[in-house]
Amino acid sequence: MGTFVNNAWYVAAWGNEVRRELLPRTLLGQQILLYRKENGEAVALVDRCPHKLAPLSLGELKGDSVQCGYHGLTFDCSGTCIRVPGQRNIPTEAQVRAFPVMEKYNAIWVWMGDPEQADTTAIIDVPHYGDPGWGLVDGQYLHFKSNYLNITDNLVDPAHTSYVHKNTIGNAAGEEVGVKVEQSDSHVLAYRWINDAPQVPLVERMGKLAGNVDRWQYYYLHLPSISYVDFGCIPVGTEPTEANKDRGFRSFSFNFLTPETESTTHYFWLHLRNYHPDDPQASDDVARLMNQTFEEDATLLEFIQREQERTGVREYARIAIDNAPLRIRRQIERLQSKEQSAEAAAMDCEAETAIR
Amino acid sequence: MGTFVNNAWYVAAWGNEVRRELLPRTLLGQQILLYRKENGEAVALVDRCPHKLAPLSLGELKGDSVQCGYHGLTFDCSGTCIRVPGQRNIPTEAQVRAFPVMEKYNAIWVWMGDPEQADTTAIIDVPHYGDPGWGLVDGQYLHFKSNYLNITDNLVDPAHTSYVHKNTIGNAAGEEVGVKVEQSDSHVLAYRWINDAPQVPLVERMGKLAGNVDRWQYYYLHLPSISYVDFGCIPVGTEPTEANKDRGFRSFSFNFLTPETESTTHYFWLHLRNYHPDDPQASDDVARLMNQTFEEDATLLEFIQREQERTGVREYARIAIDNAPLRIRRQIERLQSKEQSAEAAAMDCEAETAIR
Amino acid sequence: MGTFVNNAWYVAAWGNEVRRELLPRTLLGQQILLYRKENGEAVALVDRCPHKLAPLSLGELKGDSVQCGYHGLTFDCSGTCIRVPGQRNIPTEAQVRAFPVMEKYNAIWVWMGDPEQADTTAIIDVPHYGDPGWGLVDGQYLHFKSNYLNITDNLVDPAHTSYVHKNTIGNAAGEEVGVKVEQSDSHVLAYRWINDAPQVPLVERMGKLAGNVDRWQYYYLHLPSISYVDFGCIPVGTEPTEANKDRGFRSFSFNFLTPETESTTHYFWLHLRNYHPDDPQASDDVARLMNQTFEEDATLLEFIQREQERTGVREYARIAIDNAPLRIRRQIERLQSKEQSAEAAAMDCEAETAIR
Repeated sequence: MGTFVNNAWYVAAWGNEVRRELLPRTLLGQQILLYRKENGEAVALVDRCPHKLAPLSLGELKGDSVQCGYHGLTFDCSGTCIRVPGQRNIPTEAQVRAFPVMEKYNAIWVWMGDPEQADTTAIIDVPHYGDPGWGLVDGQYLHFKSNYLNITDNLVDPAHTSYVHKNTIGNAAGEEVGVKVEQSDSHVLAYRWINDAPQVPLVERMGKLAGNVDRWQYYYLHLPSISYVDFGCIPVGTEPTEANKDRGFRSFSFNFLTPETESTTHYFWLHLRNYHPDDPQASDDVARLMNQTFEEDATLLEFIQREQERTGVREYARIAIDNAPLRIRRQIERLQSKEQSAEAAAMDCEAETAIR
Repeated sequence: MGTFVNNAWYVAAWGNEVRRELLPRTLLGQQILLYRKENGEAVALVDRCPHKLAPLSLGELKGDSVQCGYHGLTFDCSGTCIRVPGQRNIPTEAQVRAFPVMEKYNAIWVWMGDPEQADTTAIIDVPHYGDPGWGLVDGQYLHFKSNYLNITDNLVDPAHTSYVHKNTIGNAAGEEVGVKVEQSDSHVLAYRWINDAPQVPLVERMGKLAGNVDRWQYYYLHLPSISYVDFGCIPVGTEPTEANKDRGFRSFSFNFLTPETESTTHYFWLHLRNYHPDDPQASDDVARLMNQTFEEDATLLEFIQREQERTGVREYARIAIDNAPLRIRRQIERLQSKEQSAEAAAMDCEAETAIR
Repeated sequence: MGTFVNNAWYVAAWGNEVRRELLPRTLLGQQILLYRKENGEAVALVDRCPHKLAPLSLGELKGDSVQCGYHGLTFDCSGTCIRVPGQRNIPTEAQVRAFPVMEKYNAIWVWMGDPEQADTTAIIDVPHYGDPGWGLVDGQYLHFKSNYLNITDNLVDPAHTSYVHKNTIGNAAGEEVGVKVEQSDSHVLAYRWINDAPQVPLVERMGKLAGNVDRWQYYYLHLPSISYVDFGCIPVGTEPTEANKDRGFRSFSFNFLTPETESTTHYFWLHLRNYHPDDPQASDDVARLMNQTFEEDATLLEFIQREQERTGVREYARIAIDNAPLRIRRQIERLQSKEQSAEAAAMDCEAETAIR
């Protein structure tokens, strides 16, 4: 069994990637086709003609429908075959799966599981999105050659920043500071405060504060695989209220992980900040520094993925900071077995109907 | 079990590829060595020294024999070892398999199965080959990254030309015209007439006829994998006799498919035409347009091959035009089980001899 | 089961490759990390952090210890974890394997098996190493895409030089001269004399002797995989005493094979000669011609490796010159089963202790 959770909204693409043309993309191991209808709504279909398995993305968009490039079978945006050239009747198997789609935060979200459970209100809330006074960097993408759970491990693990990211978002001051963990049914949170410490390189560069600071790192993992980091710092000794934090140096960083295959992951990210919100130079700096940071992770996690595949080993010696990563993995297993029970129940139900 | 039929003549190379040097080539999953004897006859041996598995093609041609480049073991053109340097006796296992070879239509044909069944009169007949008034393009080759049966599917399927080849040999006029199928023990034929229709791009370009035409497509598949397409058109309403067809615009296109591996295929082709037969420009045009056409197929079929391998799925929804492809696959299965029965019988026979 | 013998000293690197930095290298299928301590001694550890499997070679050298680049776990040169940042206690599983290391003949030798059996006096003796009057070429390396046993086959096989190396160390004179074989528990020797024969290209080029010569080839294989070739020639009819040989044209060529994986091998080599010992041009010539010679082997053996993998066939027709290669393979099997018995005994012993 794989590691995917199907019943979730995943970012499939940034909005500007999906146009009036056929875009193929692999999501959760499935070949998916993305395009927009004439009215601008996005569509997601399985990218495989049920006749001869040709990718529909090699065909043509005809209005809101897709025509296969091999024999012209045509499917509407619900995946129903509406034409087989040269014959009247359409075989019932000539059907491709369509996925529920939403567009929010400039992103195209696809529900990969049971369509009946697709709740359009369940997409994560991004605070301050569109608010004046908050600068936005979005449309960012990296391709990780690693299973997504190695990345979620990493994204609830503030401790690694002292080593992997010492040139951007970490420094030695955090090395000995422990991490606390909380969780609910929908998320796992790992956090810590590093008080009265020198600024990390990125904060220093932005020049909003002077001297030592109290720094917080709140790493949320919204299950199954959206990471949400509340990061910032305030003058030493400031009371850490939300209002004071908003007056300090603060950012919200969202990393939308979408498994591509069991060994690769799409990494979409956006970033909101309360410093130099309207300065394009600051936006460029954030994009560059965060991409540099994530590429440091990508390099490391690719080595780990290869070593896991080579040895068959997945875990090893456990240490205190593994608390949050282990909770995520347990939650993922819980979500997977919930999906399997639902599938088994559905099959029983079908069998019973068949007997009657 | 694989998909190959061994008892058949396959094109292994064009005649001018095989010279007084050692040419390695993979045919039906086997490493084969091709060369010419001093008298010009072509030879096909297994390209593997029985001593240490070195490819004989890394060795040297010595007269009509091949000397291994590792230890000098020498094999004559029947595959018999005639020298082991440093010793007198030659081990009986020091033998490589030799294959029956024919040269016809500028091509080197190899019989990959039981040598006793190799019938040199069984090579397919190419009509008008060498006739004055018929222009020839030969020596053409493409490498397909697809199992050969995906290509035979394609080559008895006139319907796909309206979509895949709309810039060369197809157009929209054929979209709704059905296909008829006939078969014998040695071939499957799919054909149709598209009457009173605009000329397809290639015909128009050649400028032999004017205005609408009656167009025929006869797609023969000579088992296991030689495709033979009789294609042409005549003025609307002309009686379709052979003589009238020969006076119209007509071509015979032969595609000699030789499986390389289960997932790749050698695609040798030649083409005879009754228009501008002596015009090198027309030959160049035919070579270019047909290669363009076949490369359109190659691209599509590579995607399909990869999707078949990825999913393990081979077939899906069936439609009317699958009639001929399905007949071919059934005939291939029939030929394969015939070969297996013969092999089993041979083994029984050996066992009985051993008991006595 | 693989083909490796663990209880042996293997060259892991040339001395000048290992410095005050982290060098990853795969040996016998294991990821190994090499570096030098502050006092210059070389260290070999498993290159994998027991926490998350990150390669330690992506981390940093801290004094004589290695700090993982992911979370800062630090291991001393015995592989013991001495720090887990953010916590006091160190889990017992936080340990990486360290290997016995020796430095000799400018090479770093690693013992890959049971450390208790590592005998530092057991490294092979290289005659005339460092002697005046003997020219040295060392620091040479090639990467073979072949299992090491295909290479040991080759290195006790003087017969192949007539074919594979006819441009450097072989010629036609040797084609019909048989090979004698001797063996002990630690080595297999294949040798022959080719008397009153023209000089081979390399000898001729060096210009030490004139006219025909008596030539010897003594191919030792020190188990499991060090090849040692005593090669030379003397004027025709000279009595072959050690002293006369040393006055003739003589070289000792050592090839230290270290399996990288089951299908690839590190090939370290050094060469001692008694001709033009202090002439850098002669050294350059030897390096160039020997590398050319070994690359001829590498090309051939890569084809053989691929054919073995493709067909699953390892051996085939046997001829007289296979005597020495077959003895080596039997000796390797003997060494492997000895290792397995020792492992089984150790496990029994542990089990017994556990019961008590």
